Amino acid sequence: MKVVIAIDSFKGSLTSGQANEAAAAGVRDACPEAAIVTVPLADGGEGTVEALVRATAGQLVTLTVTGPLGKPLAASYGLLSDGRTAVIEVAAACGLTLVPPAERDPLKTTTFGVGELIADALSRGCTELIIGLGGSATNDAGIGMLQALGYSFRDTRGLEAAHGGAALTGIAAIDQSSAHPLLAHARIRVACDVDNPLHGPEGAASIFAPQKGASAEAVEQLDRGLAHFAALIHDQLGRDVQRIPGAGAAGGLGAAFAGLLGATLTPGAPLVLEAAGFDRLLEGSDFVITGEGRLDGQTARGKAPLAVARAASGHGIPVIALAGDVAPQAAELAALGITAAFSIVSGPASLEQAMSPAVAQDGLRRTTKELFRLLRTMQRRQ
Amino acid sequence: MKVVIAIDSFKGSLTSGQANEAAAAGVRDACPEAAIVTVPLADGGEGTVEALVRATAGQLVTLTVTGPLGKPLAASYGLLSDGRTAVIEVAAACGLTLVPPAERDPLKTTTFGVGELIADALSRGCTELIIGLGGSATNDAGIGMLQALGYSFRDTRGLEAAHGGAALTGIAAIDQSSAHPLLAHARIRVACDVDNPLHGPEGAASIFAPQKGASAEAVEQLDRGLAHFAALIHDQLGRDVQRIPGAGAAGGLGAAFAGLLGATLTPGAPLVLEAAGFDRLLEGSDFVITGEGRLDGQTARGKAPLAVARAASGHGIPVIALAGDVAPQAAELAALGITAAFSIVSGPASLEQAMSPAVAQDGLRRTTKELFRLLRTMQRRQ
Repeated sequence: MKVVIAIDSFKGSLTSGQANEAAAAGVRDACPEAAIVTVPLADGGEGTVEALVRATAGQLVTLTVTGPLGKPLAASYGLLSDGRTAVIEVAAACGLTLVPPAERDPLKTTTFGVGELIADALSRGCTELIIGLGGSATNDAGIGMLQALGYSFRDTRGLEAAHGGAALTGIAAIDQSSAHPLLAHARIRVACDVDNPLHGPEGAASIFAPQKGASAEAVEQLDRGLAHFAALIHDQLGRDVQRIPGAGAAGGLGAAFAGLLGATLTPGAPLVLEAAGFDRLLEGSDFVITGEGRLDGQTARGKAPLAVARAASGHGIPVIALAGDVAPQAAELAALGITAAFSIVSGPASLEQAMSPAVAQDGLRRTTKELFRLLRTMQRRQ
Repeated sequence: MKVVIAIDSFKGSLTSGQANEAAAAGVRDACPEAAIVTVPLADGGEGTVEALVRATAGQLVTLTVTGPLGKPLAASYGLLSDGRTAVIEVAAACGLTLVPPAERDPLKTTTFGVGELIADALSRGCTELIIGLGGSATNDAGIGMLQALGYSFRDTRGLEAAHGGAALTGIAAIDQSSAHPLLAHARIRVACDVDNPLHGPEGAASIFAPQKGASAEAVEQLDRGLAHFAALIHDQLGRDVQRIPGAGAAGGLGAAFAGLLGATLTPGAPLVLEAAGFDRLLEGSDFVITGEGRLDGQTARGKAPLAVARAASGHGIPVIALAGDVAPQAAELAALGITAAFSIVSGPASLEQAMSPAVAQDGLRRTTKELFRLLRTMQRRQ
């Protein structure tokens, strides 16, 4: 029996890796002979690089880049075992957690380091780039990243744009002539689960800049900058980045990736699964186990367990979903490739008790064990 | 697919019948084509007659008997569809709930009505008697029952023993010569899940009489009476009823049944299952579902779900146990024929929430549905 286990984190309780290990122990309890493959899940957010490096036995590459405030920063990205795929979380070079709360100011913070990570990956021969957006401290529409990759943004006096979102309003000319030559040979796919436009009331500045430290006035200035930049791209390059769903992700990095670097913006979980070689891991598998802390209607909106279910059901493999809490709406998951969903709670318990890591691990292991005792018995009878 | 469902009551929440119906609905949700057989469970205690009458499409027989305090009482027993098996709960004729609390006094209460029920069953041609002990208001060692069946217990002056446990100490002679002639042709099996001896510190009076309304002095008098009666049986009939495990059940009715009527005392749940024709119902079954409110080590000590599991595993049929609370010790159930055990709780919940009948029914239905979605998928793949 071959079982693929790909459980998302139980937020506030277990990491994806811990959840997978607990379920794997349960499968082994019931079926010591089972071949078990565990796949840590990620959706392009924090943990994506680690999950893919682990899933493919890849490696971390660490280099010094320009941090969000312009200071040197040691940042890492993942080089997968195929030697040609790089996985980059933009937060590694421009993440909000890299900036002390008092210094958070998206008028000043730059994505320059993201471009340096990409340039490093290109120089190592990577032709597949997987980018995790999310968690950025910036609102510069990616001009910092683009500058690090050879792009130039000059004002009416011919001066190069400085770091930060404040510079956007002054840009008068976009020069792509010195762009990194290897960019043309690379496929860039961006994990992006928001569909905000670049500017306007639903844009990057209005929706995300306040939590990055922008005042109301700064938000207005940033939004004007994004609108100006979009108009400039439209005038000079003939592209309408404003309307690209997700252009407003990560302070406008979405627009830079999709509008200028030719990247595709795509839901994170399926992209990460594909990069992990999930389809190949599914081959010959009898069951797939997925899950997350709370399984409800939300899952149907594109989260990792659903991506797992979709991939597995495409192969005709039964999918078992395990969760701390299976909400009534979870019934609709059946239509989306989840064969059956079970709670791992063994009886009446408070939320606090149920979320204790030891209790959650035990519940995952026990529930998996009982299920596989039953399934193994059936396999033997038939 | 054929599924046999035999779930015990979820005490304080669902009856056995309600639990069975909820699980049946879940099986139907997942497998509309399944053949489903529901078997209400009982262990010889309250509900045994109803469960067996339902399981075998039998009927209730009601007659007027002598109540525990000597007054007329309408009491019922079950006549199963084979026409030769009677099921009698002694509590129907001498139950504690038939006596108002202020009048409870095992020095006075009699089992006479139990004998009248038995006599009626014999007169209808029953040759198989299944007796549920438990819940009696009496401590008369069954002399009332035996008198109703033609036995005579006289004192030194030749007077017949009066009703109640107080009469035991005065008995000087046992006369079986007028015993009901059909008793010799009947097999009597008694559902008995206690192993108390007739008298002494673990005997009927010491352990059970206080909860039947006996004072400390009355307990002592009753215990002396039981010891005297045991000695008399030993002297006059050469039988040692004191040492029969369960002789002390139901105020010494165990001793009367086993010592004088040639009955066997046997664990209740397997006996009731056998009477329900459970082995026959299992034929051709793919799965058996059992369960109870709380599944724990206690179950291993002879309760109904274990009897179900033992019977089913004897046929090689996988057994799924469902419970509101699956305690850690439940792991040992695996060794006893339960293939897999699952909680029906869908997430964090208080005991009160979990025990709400609507929540428990929903949990049973949902868990069963998810399990059978998975099992049906497997059946189709193989």
